[in-house]
Amino acid sequence: SRSINLAVIPGDGIGQEVVTEGLKVLSAALPQDVKLETKEYDFGARRYHATGETLTDADLDALKKHDAILLGAIGDPSVPSGVLERGFLLKLRFAFDHHVNLRPSKLLPGVDTPLKGEPSIDFVVVREGTEGPYTGNGGTIRKGTEHEVATEVSVNTAFGVERVVRDAFARAQARPRKKLALIHKNNVLTFAGHLWTNIFNKVAAEYPEVTTEYMHVDAATIYLVTQPERFDVIVTDNLFGDIITDLAAAVSGGIGVAASGNINPSGEFPSMFEPVHGSAPDIAGQAKADPTATVLSVALLLRHLGHEAEATRIEEAVAADLAERVGNPARSTSEIGDALAVRVAG
Amino acid sequence: SRSINLAVIPGDGIGQEVVTEGLKVLSAALPQDVKLETKEYDFGARRYHATGETLTDADLDALKKHDAILLGAIGDPSVPSGVLERGFLLKLRFAFDHHVNLRPSKLLPGVDTPLKGEPSIDFVVVREGTEGPYTGNGGTIRKGTEHEVATEVSVNTAFGVERVVRDAFARAQARPRKKLALIHKNNVLTFAGHLWTNIFNKVAAEYPEVTTEYMHVDAATIYLVTQPERFDVIVTDNLFGDIITDLAAAVSGGIGVAASGNINPSGEFPSMFEPVHGSAPDIAGQAKADPTATVLSVALLLRHLGHEAEATRIEEAVAADLAERVGNPARSTSEIGDALAVRVAG
Ligand SMILES: CC(C)[C@H](C(=O)O)[C@@H](O)C(=O)O
Ligand SMILES: CC(C)[C@H](C(=O)O)[C@@H](O)C(=O)O
Repeated sequence: SRSINLAVIPGDGIGQEVVTEGLKVLSAALPQDVKLETKEYDFGARRYHATGETLTDADLDALKKHDAILLGAIGDPSVPSGVLERGFLLKLRFAFDHHVNLRPSKLLPGVDTPLKGEPSIDFVVVREGTEGPYTGNGGTIRKGTEHEVATEVSVNTAFGVERVVRDAFARAQARPRKKLALIHKNNVLTFAGHLWTNIFNKVAAEYPEVTTEYMHVDAATIYLVTQPERFDVIVTDNLFGDIITDLAAAVSGGIGVAASGNINPSGEFPSMFEPVHGSAPDIAGQAKADPTATVLSVALLLRHLGHEAEATRIEEAVAADLAERVGNPARSTSEIGDALAVRVAG
Repeated sequence: SRSINLAVIPGDGIGQEVVTEGLKVLSAALPQDVKLETKEYDFGARRYHATGETLTDADLDALKKHDAILLGAIGDPSVPSGVLERGFLLKLRFAFDHHVNLRPSKLLPGVDTPLKGEPSIDFVVVREGTEGPYTGNGGTIRKGTEHEVATEVSVNTAFGVERVVRDAFARAQARPRKKLALIHKNNVLTFAGHLWTNIFNKVAAEYPEVTTEYMHVDAATIYLVTQPERFDVIVTDNLFGDIITDLAAAVSGGIGVAASGNINPSGEFPSMFEPVHGSAPDIAGQAKADPTATVLSVALLLRHLGHEAEATRIEEAVAADLAERVGNPARSTSEIGDALAVRVAG
């Protein structure tokens, strides 16, 4: 499309700083004839403290009109744990049916990893985004007493699992190595595990070219640090995906470069793109945050909207920028953004 | 006590090989006047195929009479996923109320780690063993149809959480660094998360000397590969503990050296000690399995039964043996066991 109507949610902590650079690079990447309109939304801790609101129905109606959403980070120590996570981030993922939570991990040349031996890392995790233990099902009885019981219910449906498994197979089919790993814990979580495994095997029959494997989540953490080159595409449940994508980020350059997309593939609702890192209140306002993860999230956003060439140009600019960091002094948030914008405008 | 009446469960795959060496070192470590009686039990895939049984009430009655249990490994590809895990391993942990699942991680000199920079790793995970998503609660409706729904219920009780949190605080208090980290996901799993966090904070007030921190499980995987030296004692839920202890094993020498104890602290039921690794059918019968994890599990067993000096002697023998491996040819399972037995007796 020749115009992009973008919702921008800077959020808390370093969110504003990294989003500013993300938008800078986005503008530099877009062809002259693509019109970019942005509207900023003030969600997060400030709004919560001022109004008690996290995300209202009216907010959802407004966000719904956009082509996509760019988010910085949400979360602040002044807000009790869970309030903004459940009340904003997860509410939005569920309301807009972001069932494909896409998290690529690529160790780029020049980037440091905690792992020995310069492993070659290039895989993408397709994390289910609307089910599993994230649904908020469960409850507490006898709260605060010695007889308290708290439950959390992981909900898994054939509908929800099949669509994300299909998305992952299609992605694996489109990649040179054509490998797909299902990660679960089907030897213990047998109800959900069998559902996932059966659907995975059923869809696999339609993709004879894709090599598949199954791995327990605990074993997967071992492979992620001992044989990360083994992975190409991974599909997994919401909670396992949360855990392994942080580990994946850690081994492939850190959360400073980890991008993500919360995608609604049908386009019925706008998809949301955000760095995997949080609001990092400890370094907020100091121009120290690395905007790279946000810039890479902008690339995912552009690819999602059909601007493949521009997405690739941003990724190449990031790769070149990272390769040049070695041995050079640290730059500020905006210096990195400026450098990337210059490269992208090329 | 001056006698040990031990149940031995070799199990499947490499189980028999590693247990043989574990018992060899156990015998070598025990003082002359401690009588060791062992009884072998034939659980696992063979028995399942022959009889359809995994663990009967009569089996539990027999096992109950022992002072402790030494397990090799259970699991074989010929048995559907979940049958032996739920039908034997978890059934035993639940029946004998093994609520403290103890998993130490120590990177010993000479041992290879996938991490750069020779990190200093020495922590212990206290994993809850009888609650959480492991209870088997949940179910499936409309199985095999496009309308299938599968649930898994994580059950958390004040009783169950408080006892394991207390155990972890006592362990932290007894260690030089006196640090304890609670790992959970209380920003998403708010019902269970608040129960864990409140009880953790309540008990913390009784241990003013213990430095505490809270960490989300996803963030914890990052710290385990970037700052493992940060950890001293970790307390966590059953599933998070499963995941992070495999990662912990991977960074601290691999599952070849990872020991565990499934402990019933009251002594009402016998505790069970087992290597963290599985049955490794691919190398079974080839004398290639490293018995070190089983030998270290024997040390935990001895410590649990009050034989502290013997436990320490085994751990020192393992440390010396590992340090000597560098640059030397690989040894067979029994050669390693022999060498350890000689050191321990020595
Ligand atoms: C902040 C939290 C709700 C979120 C999640 O658990 O999904 C975060 O960890 C992530 O990975 O995006
Ligand atoms: C085999 C399986 C049931 C078990 C678990 O999940 O607890 C194993 O992974 C472990 O860590 O002991």
